[in-house]
Amino acid sequence: MDSTINDGRALQRLLDELGRLPGIGPKSAQRIAYHLLEADAEEARRLAMAILEVKQQVHFCPVCFSYATRDTCDVCADVSRDRSSICVVSEPRDVTAIERTGSYHGLYHVLGGVISPMDKIGPEQLHVRELLSRLADGSVSEVILATNPDVEGETTATYLSRVIRPLGVRVTRLASGLPVGGDLEYADEVTLGRAIEARQEV
Amino acid sequence: MDSTINDGRALQRLLDELGRLPGIGPKSAQRIAYHLLEADAEEARRLAMAILEVKQQVHFCPVCFSYATRDTCDVCADVSRDRSSICVVSEPRDVTAIERTGSYHGLYHVLGGVISPMDKIGPEQLHVRELLSRLADGSVSEVILATNPDVEGETTATYLSRVIRPLGVRVTRLASGLPVGGDLEYADEVTLGRAIEARQEV
Repeated sequence: MDSTINDGRALQRLLDELGRLPGIGPKSAQRIAYHLLEADAEEARRLAMAILEVKQQVHFCPVCFSYATRDTCDVCADVSRDRSSICVVSEPRDVTAIERTGSYHGLYHVLGGVISPMDKIGPEQLHVRELLSRLADGSVSEVILATNPDVEGETTATYLSRVIRPLGVRVTRLASGLPVGGDLEYADEVTLGRAIEARQEV
Repeated sequence: MDSTINDGRALQRLLDELGRLPGIGPKSAQRIAYHLLEADAEEARRLAMAILEVKQQVHFCPVCFSYATRDTCDVCADVSRDRSSICVVSEPRDVTAIERTGSYHGLYHVLGGVISPMDKIGPEQLHVRELLSRLADGSVSEVILATNPDVEGETTATYLSRVIRPLGVRVTRLASGLPVGGDLEYADEVTLGRAIEARQEV
């Protein structure tokens, strides 16, 4: 373990770093810092190692661009998954959200974002080409567009349905039922599960 | 950096460890984990190192039993502090809360808990003996009892005032104004600052 010299600022440094995390304000950072100070050294070490390992070991799956710790992600590697359907999402966290529902047993494809002219993000900045090449061999019969039900998500879904339908692949969209303008990541399991079951052709 | 073999569970391990932190539920743990996955490796490394260093470098001050990164804590080491008054608190985090107010310029003494018969914690389980020995040389003219305004905090304050007053030392208590049953750690700076200024002899 390489360690810096003791400059007497260790606690402040921890508070600063914790404060950078999403949803962690100064008071939460302090509660966590004091918790770690009171916790046994092993618990703190496990957390630190978990942070380092996740950066060392987690990379993008070369097939679906979700997070993977082995060659491909757990879903792509799972022979029991239905390989005739691909669920297209914006971010890896959306895969986790859908997996939690237990309502979907096919494969995924992570775009790595959504079409957003404002941010100069078009199809070529996303993993669209890779999606189309996965559809080339005709083994996939359905593509479920599971981008968020907001403006950019809808734009992206509309664009994808337009380029995929010509390939003779059934294109569906998550049923609305998700609060419009809401974020798929925060939808509860039941709502999201229903939205998958009631998906409609677009 | 000693690292474990890649067992494909790095992300789950991080979620588990984050979930142990106070105020971090499954969704928050996930948001933080994905933030770290998306953050550059250096930010994640800084957080991990800060956690490890805080455990390596922070210990209890041998004088006041607050947290210290050098031989004694920053307050005990600060020659500009008023050494004639000692503010007695339950936990090191209470020192931070009072320091934030900027209303107190004396020294501290951390008991390391409060008297609690239910949990079999009496004066001998706390740093009371060490407090009394700090009062022995007569250099301290006032002891401010800043335990929380709840049952155990009041019990502890009553006990301490009874053992300290005979030494001819002025014993004061934070003014009520703190919500009774509330927690000193979460009092806002203004309330806590006023409570210090309006402290009363007990």
